[in-house]
Amino acid sequence: MKHIFIAIIIFIAFSSFTSIKTVKNTGEPINKTDSIVVKKLFNSALTNGKGYEWLRDLTSNIGGRLSGSPEAQQAVEWGEKLMTELDFDKVWLQPVMVPHWVRGEKEEAYFTINKTKYNVAICALGGSIATPKNGVSGEVIEVKSLAEAEALGEKLRGKIVFFNRPFDDTLIETFKAYGGCVDQRGGGAKVTGKFGVLGVIVRSMTNSIDNFPHTGAMGYGDIPENEKVPAAAISTEAANLLSEKLKENPTLKFYFKQSCETLPDAPSFNVIGELTGSESPNTFITVGGHLDSWDLGDGAHDDGAGIVQSIEVLRLFQLNGIIPKHTIRVVLFMNEENGLRGGKKYAEEAKLNNEIHIAALESDSGGFTPRGFSIDANGKNQELIESWKSLLAPYGLHDINEGHSGSDIGPLKSETITLIGYRPDSQRYFNYHHAANDTFDKVNKRELELGAASMASLVYLLDNYLE
Amino acid sequence: MKHIFIAIIIFIAFSSFTSIKTVKNTGEPINKTDSIVVKKLFNSALTNGKGYEWLRDLTSNIGGRLSGSPEAQQAVEWGEKLMTELDFDKVWLQPVMVPHWVRGEKEEAYFTINKTKYNVAICALGGSIATPKNGVSGEVIEVKSLAEAEALGEKLRGKIVFFNRPFDDTLIETFKAYGGCVDQRGGGAKVTGKFGVLGVIVRSMTNSIDNFPHTGAMGYGDIPENEKVPAAAISTEAANLLSEKLKENPTLKFYFKQSCETLPDAPSFNVIGELTGSESPNTFITVGGHLDSWDLGDGAHDDGAGIVQSIEVLRLFQLNGIIPKHTIRVVLFMNEENGLRGGKKYAEEAKLNNEIHIAALESDSGGFTPRGFSIDANGKNQELIESWKSLLAPYGLHDINEGHSGSDIGPLKSETITLIGYRPDSQRYFNYHHAANDTFDKVNKRELELGAASMASLVYLLDNYLE
Repeated sequence: MKHIFIAIIIFIAFSSFTSIKTVKNTGEPINKTDSIVVKKLFNSALTNGKGYEWLRDLTSNIGGRLSGSPEAQQAVEWGEKLMTELDFDKVWLQPVMVPHWVRGEKEEAYFTINKTKYNVAICALGGSIATPKNGVSGEVIEVKSLAEAEALGEKLRGKIVFFNRPFDDTLIETFKAYGGCVDQRGGGAKVTGKFGVLGVIVRSMTNSIDNFPHTGAMGYGDIPENEKVPAAAISTEAANLLSEKLKENPTLKFYFKQSCETLPDAPSFNVIGELTGSESPNTFITVGGHLDSWDLGDGAHDDGAGIVQSIEVLRLFQLNGIIPKHTIRVVLFMNEENGLRGGKKYAEEAKLNNEIHIAALESDSGGFTPRGFSIDANGKNQELIESWKSLLAPYGLHDINEGHSGSDIGPLKSETITLIGYRPDSQRYFNYHHAANDTFDKVNKRELELGAASMASLVYLLDNYLE
Repeated sequence: MKHIFIAIIIFIAFSSFTSIKTVKNTGEPINKTDSIVVKKLFNSALTNGKGYEWLRDLTSNIGGRLSGSPEAQQAVEWGEKLMTELDFDKVWLQPVMVPHWVRGEKEEAYFTINKTKYNVAICALGGSIATPKNGVSGEVIEVKSLAEAEALGEKLRGKIVFFNRPFDDTLIETFKAYGGCVDQRGGGAKVTGKFGVLGVIVRSMTNSIDNFPHTGAMGYGDIPENEKVPAAAISTEAANLLSEKLKENPTLKFYFKQSCETLPDAPSFNVIGELTGSESPNTFITVGGHLDSWDLGDGAHDDGAGIVQSIEVLRLFQLNGIIPKHTIRVVLFMNEENGLRGGKKYAEEAKLNNEIHIAALESDSGGFTPRGFSIDANGKNQELIESWKSLLAPYGLHDINEGHSGSDIGPLKSETITLIGYRPDSQRYFNYHHAANDTFDKVNKRELELGAASMASLVYLLDNYLE
């Protein structure tokens, strides 16, 4: 045992020594230096990570931070202050006007069968209008798709439409199940408003059977004002109960009330920080997440995790003395949830300023254990990144495939840019997504830190090898 | 959308139809049938899984179930009843005598600096003796290893030895960090007793900094009775505090009291069920976990998860009409935590009865999202299993490597048997391991189900291809 002990001491001493040397990206093919740098990034994230405490601060002291809210403004100031304290080479705010939707009073909903009343958990969908002040009440028609609702047409008049297609649990990636259902939330009100329905209730977008309603964006498109109806999410537990009761009592009455409204657009900001590149300071690699969140929870996984991981990428570079060739920029995007105005603004400004962005990486899938990256790039760069698989596999990063990158960085899309999404394990994400239980205690410290190190490693490699 | 809807209906109809056909293992090389069967196993685990509710029942209605306790006996009856109801071909109890250690009253510990008292969270280590009735009190010597303690020798006399080497957080696999520390828990009392110490306090075996003490087995080996001293685990938060305070107050006094004791060995059982093989009924593939758990929590991840996943393997075979060639046996091993008597007994009986075991799979690393399998087999079988990587990768099973299988199946080791450990993600495991927070709410339904399907798939392939 003594030898092991001495070996550990030597290892620690050596690690401390090497961590203050600077590592300049050299552009050599994947080599031993790269694997040493990646190991150092993981070591420092796991032994000296700050992201977890930043996330505790953001989620506990500010909490939910919907675009236009006072909390969103506090989050902007929080991000600017943090990055300034970290002594990044440049930190600034990029102004952007954002939608300003407010939930109003807590929603209320129940259904009645004869004289028995069943209270159910609902929440207004983001962007929805309010019900009349005293709520709406009516019979319910359950459907499983937009198409089914459209086909019913006039039969929906005077009714509440209940969209109840559940997640397909057989899909291993839960994001695919979400993708297969979310049209109900986004478009349910839009397609049924013209039939004079009273309102729309949508099964929560989760594979978990629980009593949390999950909010999220919906839209009316360009339908006339008088066709707009209120839309709410209902918890999966309540959806199952309602569906079951409807079978025996098709004329049961459902009541719900919500007082949300859309206020005029509000001023806000993307928060940006950077480490200036040593060789190509005017060529950028952007890493980010979104600073806004829904209002029900604290936005811990969505997307506080992505925010602190993105900031951590730059701090891990600093800590390990890595001087990037290109400018590495962290962007805390505003308004991903209900407008994407921050992402659009950032891309617009980049274009106006003739900034060359060679890559952008987004973390917006939660702070869970690393699985890989999904890549939206040309074939050559796709191959380049896939060639790093063996280097990244020891860290659990196996799933390095073509795929969607991230909503906020999407507007940067061009012929040449490499867009990448960080992909943690997806199994637990939709238990918390857009719901009141998306809180700090659901985030595991090591999982979060491994994600930050995964992202830092990828940015290091992109900086080194991407042309 | 309508087409998607119709496609889903057809898919569901098709799935239902195929699920009642029987699939007989044919021994052909990996082919399309295998990938269809694996997909069916995952589909049915994810849409029709029972393990999560079984686990809720076991952990909530019985809870912690240390060998020799009434709860362990209840768990035996629970397992036998469940497998009987599932109509396995054969279900029986295999008697085994087990150690019977009891914790006694809740432990108490504090340290004092001048007149300030700091209460700290401790728990007796399994197998430890009690302190004298009024506890022990003395100065503390902090060490980082058994070797350091041994070297101090006589300087330890009359002191409490505080083993405080933490997990190495840079190791990606947390089991490796555990492996690098657990000698302190197992051997701390054994190596210091001869120096006349008052007792031993060991930093909890976890990478989490929190206030849960984590119990676990310790041993005295064959040291004389009068050299045996009480040993307890201290929470990591308290360990950090104590270590910090010791720097300024090396003569602070630590007090602890525990009333645990070892009673005479008690009768208990392994619980066994099987599906009889259609071609080689006397050749066995065993799948299992351990039914006993520590007493502080409910033994949800350790190892309730492994228990329900193992039973689920056989149920998924039944559900999908898979008739195995070899007899597939599920074993709920008793006494993994503090004696391994169940595992040893099972291997003894297998030998006595001339049973040929070609493979054994254990799940004892928690009910987390799947990562792979570790294999202890000859080169040929190791290669065979690695050849299934591409078939299993879509389910997150990438880490299929040589390694440790499982404690309970270890005694089956022979020249010919293939021993395998199911390896879920390890990041959260030691947050809960052997502590009061190893409860049902820490288990995610889908992660548990994916594990059961992973195991069922592997057993299907072993049954089909292993010679």
